[in-house]
Amino acid sequence: MRILILGADGYLGWPTAMHFAAQGHEVIAVDNYLRRLIAQQTSSEPLFETPNLDDRAKLFKAEHGKSIDVEIGDLADLRWCDNLFAKHKPDVVVHYAEQPSAPYSMRGLDEAEMTMKNNLGVTFNVIWGMLNHCPDAHLVKLGTMGEYGTPNIDIEEGWIDVEHKGRSQKFLYPRQAGSLYHTTKVLDTDLLWFYVRLYGLRVTDLMQGPVYGLETAEAEANECLMPNFHYDDIFGTVVNRFLVQAIAGVPLTVYGKGGQTRGYLNLKDTLNCVDLASNNAADKGELRIFNQFTEQFSVNELADRVHAAGKRVGLDVKVKSIPNPRKELEDHYYNAKSTGLLELGLKPNFMTEDVLVRMLETIMSHKDRIDESKILPRVKWNG
Amino acid sequence: MRILILGADGYLGWPTAMHFAAQGHEVIAVDNYLRRLIAQQTSSEPLFETPNLDDRAKLFKAEHGKSIDVEIGDLADLRWCDNLFAKHKPDVVVHYAEQPSAPYSMRGLDEAEMTMKNNLGVTFNVIWGMLNHCPDAHLVKLGTMGEYGTPNIDIEEGWIDVEHKGRSQKFLYPRQAGSLYHTTKVLDTDLLWFYVRLYGLRVTDLMQGPVYGLETAEAEANECLMPNFHYDDIFGTVVNRFLVQAIAGVPLTVYGKGGQTRGYLNLKDTLNCVDLASNNAADKGELRIFNQFTEQFSVNELADRVHAAGKRVGLDVKVKSIPNPRKELEDHYYNAKSTGLLELGLKPNFMTEDVLVRMLETIMSHKDRIDESKILPRVKWNG
Repeated sequence: MRILILGADGYLGWPTAMHFAAQGHEVIAVDNYLRRLIAQQTSSEPLFETPNLDDRAKLFKAEHGKSIDVEIGDLADLRWCDNLFAKHKPDVVVHYAEQPSAPYSMRGLDEAEMTMKNNLGVTFNVIWGMLNHCPDAHLVKLGTMGEYGTPNIDIEEGWIDVEHKGRSQKFLYPRQAGSLYHTTKVLDTDLLWFYVRLYGLRVTDLMQGPVYGLETAEAEANECLMPNFHYDDIFGTVVNRFLVQAIAGVPLTVYGKGGQTRGYLNLKDTLNCVDLASNNAADKGELRIFNQFTEQFSVNELADRVHAAGKRVGLDVKVKSIPNPRKELEDHYYNAKSTGLLELGLKPNFMTEDVLVRMLETIMSHKDRIDESKILPRVKWNG
Repeated sequence: MRILILGADGYLGWPTAMHFAAQGHEVIAVDNYLRRLIAQQTSSEPLFETPNLDDRAKLFKAEHGKSIDVEIGDLADLRWCDNLFAKHKPDVVVHYAEQPSAPYSMRGLDEAEMTMKNNLGVTFNVIWGMLNHCPDAHLVKLGTMGEYGTPNIDIEEGWIDVEHKGRSQKFLYPRQAGSLYHTTKVLDTDLLWFYVRLYGLRVTDLMQGPVYGLETAEAEANECLMPNFHYDDIFGTVVNRFLVQAIAGVPLTVYGKGGQTRGYLNLKDTLNCVDLASNNAADKGELRIFNQFTEQFSVNELADRVHAAGKRVGLDVKVKSIPNPRKELEDHYYNAKSTGLLELGLKPNFMTEDVLVRMLETIMSHKDRIDESKILPRVKWNG
C-alpha cells in the first residue's frame, strides 16, 4: 500500500511511519514541525532531542534497509495539501496532523485560534485532497476518547441507538469535550461524517485514549529512532509525565481528587490498532469508529502503579494532589466500550509493572535532561 | 439595550435592525456585503435592489426618526471583530453573519472553503469578542432546523434525555445536516456549547426553519426599506421562490417526490422570536435552544397552497417535479417540537391564503425584474 502519514514527526506519527515502512509499504512522512515550534515557544522541549524527518529517514534506511519519503509542508495550506494528494494518490491516509495539546488550546486567544484553524483546516483540506485525487482511499483519522467527555451512561463505540417515544434512530454518539483541542476533534468527526454520507468516502475514526510508552520494535536498533517524548504539562501524557516525575523526585501531580478515569494504551498498541484499521478498510460511505484503548484507570490508580514500579527500582515515589488546572469532573461514572479493535485481532500490551519499570530505566538514562520547571501545570482552564 | 446586529444587510438582518431601532434600542448594524458579492458572482441578484446600509439607515431615520449605526467590516477578521466588540460593548448580539446558502456551500471546493472559514471563523471571533469585552452579554445566534436533518424520532428542542442500559444522560440533540452550510451550523452549536460550559457565556441558539415574507411593520413606510428578496436557487427560500415562479408562469419546481417536510415561519415571526429571545436572556452558562418555526409543511403542501393563492389572483399555477439536485429523503418521518417560543409569548402569523395573496401582489409589481434563468437549480449535490 502507499500510505501517507500526516503529522509524521509526532509522538505517534514517526513510530507509525517506521512500522509501515518496515513491513514493506510505501510510506510518505508528512509534517511541518508545528509541534516542535510550539514546544520551543512554550518551553516544553522533549526529554531528548530527535533528529528531523529527513535525518531520521536516513537513519532508518541505514538500520532497516527501507525507505521513508519525507514531505515537509503545511497541510493547512489548501494548495500545498492538494498538490501532495495529486502527487502521491495514496491508498491509505493516516491523519495525526493536528495541534494535539489540550492545555495549549486553552492558553489564550492566539492558541485557541491556531488550534481551530489548524485542526479543522487540515481535516477539511485532507477531505478535499481525497475527493479530488483518491476518492477510494481509506482515511484513518485519529480522534480522541476525549470527544465523549464523561457522560453518565456507557460510552458506546461511536454510534448509539436512541429509543425515543416508541421510535428509534441511530446517531453519532453525542459528544461534549473538556478542552478546545478535544472540541476540534468533535468538529472533525461531524465534518467527516457529512462528507462520508454525501460523497461516499471511506473513513475510520479512531477514538484514542492517552498513550504511554517509548519503545517500538523499529526504534530498538537506534535510540535516535525513538519518538519524541514529552514530560511537560503541555504535551506530556499523564503516564509519561508521572514516570519522569518519579525519577526527578517530584511528587506525582494528581489534579484534584484523582478520580478522573480514562482508557489508556501502550504506544505499541497504537501501531497495532492503526495497522489493523489500515489493513481492514472501512466500506465506501462508511464512517467506522473504534474506541482505541486497552485498559481503564483513574489517575489515582495510575499514581499507585507508578509508585509500585518506582519501588522496584529503588525510588521512593511521592504522590501529591494539586489544585486541578482543568475544568472536569474528578469523580464520575465511566464505562467505555472498546471491542471493535479486539474483534479485528488486537492483542493488547497491558500496563504491567515490568512495562513501567522498563520505561523508568530508559528515562533514567536521560535524567540529566529533566527540567523541573516544565513539570507543574502552567495553563489554567479558568485563566 | 445596545444591540449588535451581525449580518445586518441580510434578508433577516435588516428587518431585525429596524425592528429594534423602532423600539428605541441602540442598534449597530454590522455587515461586509459578502452576500451581495456572492449574489453577483453566482448571477443571483435579488428581485429588487436594496440600498446599502448607510443609505438605508438614512432613509429609516427620515421615515421613523430613529438612528441605526452602521459598521462595515469583516467579522471573520479577528482584529476587526475584536475592535468592534471593544468599541460597542453590547448587551445583546444577534448573530446572522454567516454564508447562508446551502447550494452555494455545495458548489465546489472554493465555495465550501469560504463557507467553512467564514461561518466557523465568525462564530469563533464573536465568542472571543464577548469573552474579552462583554462576558455578561447575551448572544442570540441563528442556527437552523436543518442541523437536525430528518431523523426517524421526534425532534426535541435542542436537547434530549437519552436512556441507555438503565442510566440516563441529557445531551445536545444529535444532529446530521444535509449540506455543508447546515453542517457549519452544527459545528457552531458544538463550539458555542463548549464555550458556554467552560466560561459561562449566555447563548440562545435559534434553530430556524425556512422563512417567507416581504413585509415588516417598519418597511411599509418606504419600499426602499424592504429586505432583499431572493427567488433564485442559491439564496431563495422555497416559498419565496414558488411565489415568484407562480408569477413568472414557470411551473413550481418541486424537487423529486416533494414529501420533504420542514417547519416554516413568516418573516414577521422571525422578528418576534428574536425579540422574545433578546428580551428574555439565557442564564449565565446556559445554551438555550428554541426551534423557531410555526407550521410544518411538505413541499407538495406548499405547492398546493401557492396554487390556491395564485388562483385567487387569476394565475394558473402549474407544478412540476424535477430531478432533486440535493441528496435528501423525499418521504420521511418529521415531527419537530417548537413550544419554547410560544411559552415566551409568540403569537404566530400563519401562512394563510391572504398572506400568500398579498405577497403575490407585491411581487407582481416587480414582475419585469424576474430573470427566469435564475430559477432552475444550478448546483447539484453530486456535481
